[in-house]
Amino acid sequence: MLKSIVWEKDKLKILDQTKLPEKEEYILCKSYKDVASAICEMRLRGAPLIGVAAAYGIVLGAMELSSLDFSRFVKEVLKVINHFEESRPTAKNLFFATDRMRKVLNKANSTKEAVSLFLEEAESIRAEDALANRKIGEFGQILIRDGSSVMTHCNAGALATSEYGTALGVIRAAKERGKNFSVYACETRPLLQGARLTTFELKREGIRCILITDSMACYMMSRRKIELVLVGADRVARNGDVANKIGTYMLAVCAKYHNIPFYVAAPLSTFDKETETGSDIPIEKRKDEEVTHIFGKRIAASGVCVENPSFDVTPSSLISGIITEKGIIYPPFSESFKKIFKG
Amino acid sequence: MLKSIVWEKDKLKILDQTKLPEKEEYILCKSYKDVASAICEMRLRGAPLIGVAAAYGIVLGAMELSSLDFSRFVKEVLKVINHFEESRPTAKNLFFATDRMRKVLNKANSTKEAVSLFLEEAESIRAEDALANRKIGEFGQILIRDGSSVMTHCNAGALATSEYGTALGVIRAAKERGKNFSVYACETRPLLQGARLTTFELKREGIRCILITDSMACYMMSRRKIELVLVGADRVARNGDVANKIGTYMLAVCAKYHNIPFYVAAPLSTFDKETETGSDIPIEKRKDEEVTHIFGKRIAASGVCVENPSFDVTPSSLISGIITEKGIIYPPFSESFKKIFKG
Repeated sequence: MLKSIVWEKDKLKILDQTKLPEKEEYILCKSYKDVASAICEMRLRGAPLIGVAAAYGIVLGAMELSSLDFSRFVKEVLKVINHFEESRPTAKNLFFATDRMRKVLNKANSTKEAVSLFLEEAESIRAEDALANRKIGEFGQILIRDGSSVMTHCNAGALATSEYGTALGVIRAAKERGKNFSVYACETRPLLQGARLTTFELKREGIRCILITDSMACYMMSRRKIELVLVGADRVARNGDVANKIGTYMLAVCAKYHNIPFYVAAPLSTFDKETETGSDIPIEKRKDEEVTHIFGKRIAASGVCVENPSFDVTPSSLISGIITEKGIIYPPFSESFKKIFKG
Repeated sequence: MLKSIVWEKDKLKILDQTKLPEKEEYILCKSYKDVASAICEMRLRGAPLIGVAAAYGIVLGAMELSSLDFSRFVKEVLKVINHFEESRPTAKNLFFATDRMRKVLNKANSTKEAVSLFLEEAESIRAEDALANRKIGEFGQILIRDGSSVMTHCNAGALATSEYGTALGVIRAAKERGKNFSVYACETRPLLQGARLTTFELKREGIRCILITDSMACYMMSRRKIELVLVGADRVARNGDVANKIGTYMLAVCAKYHNIPFYVAAPLSTFDKETETGSDIPIEKRKDEEVTHIFGKRIAASGVCVENPSFDVTPSSLISGIITEKGIIYPPFSESFKKIFKG
């Protein structure tokens, strides 16, 4: 199975997703800074995977500080945790992971114990994510009809999680149950995760995949029998608004126009109890060059202004349901959000 | 002023748009086949410009055949005309031009006369297109409010016409009247005409231009004050449905959702009296590599399926008005279509 991330005793191996689909190359991270850089440079991406990687990154940071006495260690390791929190602002799973690591630190009484608890916690975060994805797949696969076509955006697959995937987990689970269907993958400019990563994953699974530019999605909805749009999420607000890769909102608006169900697949670690609505979600802005250049080559007049939000917000009114590891939740999301955390 | 095309006695110089914005290079076309290849390879593009270039291409073809006796000449030159008609199927202006060239041939009594009439007709088609664009600008500029933001797709500028532009003609005319405003240019995958050509033209005009990926357009409509979406057209059906660059339909659906007026700028040479509705418009499918590769580099898993329609169809129900050289026409378009050709 495709491994996005591999922990090896005191090192983290990260599959360099910027090289895919051309090359399958792992980066060896020996220090927490290597991991943080890999996150910032999007060598790994996807909200759940960012969370898992940050947890292991904190373990590496703790190991680097393991010669310090405990009070000094606590002070320094908190800086490491802060460093990860500043890497990418939108993915809730990052903060879900750092929060858990902070809590673990509170339980420890010595540096040695803290390092050991950190590692246990990172392993738990990873294992829980893997399990959540399987559950999401189980609950969600019912939405995919044999013989149908599904549309997805960006990559919410094994490459965006510890394994299996959220939106692509649902797709995998449907395939495992013997269903035949096609997946329309939007290329997902500017960084082309749909083209580079989703086509790569689906090809490995033997699932028929049709690559389109983002601009074709709406037209395909009108001319092909797309029965479902299925995406991942970077953060879910309490009212059900969803931040996800830029272009998701466009798909949701177009799906609504064509009466196509629009589902989000996300583990509860993506749900943000502190955030009331989508307008409170911080949206990362990335550098202009991602839009003005492709493979280092300029594609626009020099000096042009650029907007480059990495995510957008889809209002809950456009969302048919959110597939979680506890089942699919439906509108009104403010209520189902509360229920799912109580249950 | 930017010259997309220059006729020089017995040669056609074509600005190679595939090289923009990096290089301003002209291709010298000495034979009709050079022109037809330039059209197929999209070295020039834009429905009105394709029409003008085909007309000049037919002149070159006629010149190449000028030693033939008239009956042989007629037979051979009709093959040249057919050759152009097979170059790109969607742009109505191409057939508008070839129809006119065929009619001219019917009037001629000798090879020499035909060659001379062809050249006159090509010059007329070009001059009429230039004039139509100015008129479209005059009528349309009223839609652009001082201090506002306009969104456009692909390139419907001087580079898509003989000069001035249709959608960008409206934008130029507003600027000439002293209005200050910003233009959001969608990059327009797969061939990036928005990024490469529209930013280039607007920069020359000193108009503030913000480049975005196509996937950002909908989100910008929700978060920025976009007051108008303005696009060109490749073919207008009798009921007002409009074929235009792929992605236009998505913008129209998203504009509707946000209550933003959606206008099309097109000369009457783009209107197709023979085509009842958009579903009758032939949509060109281009090769997979335009989607799977960028600058010759593969961006997707090999063997992935691809859809690559070069155009889509926006139903008239999503169109606020069509700006022509005879004024802006409004729904119901079936009636206004008839009226504008009578008036």
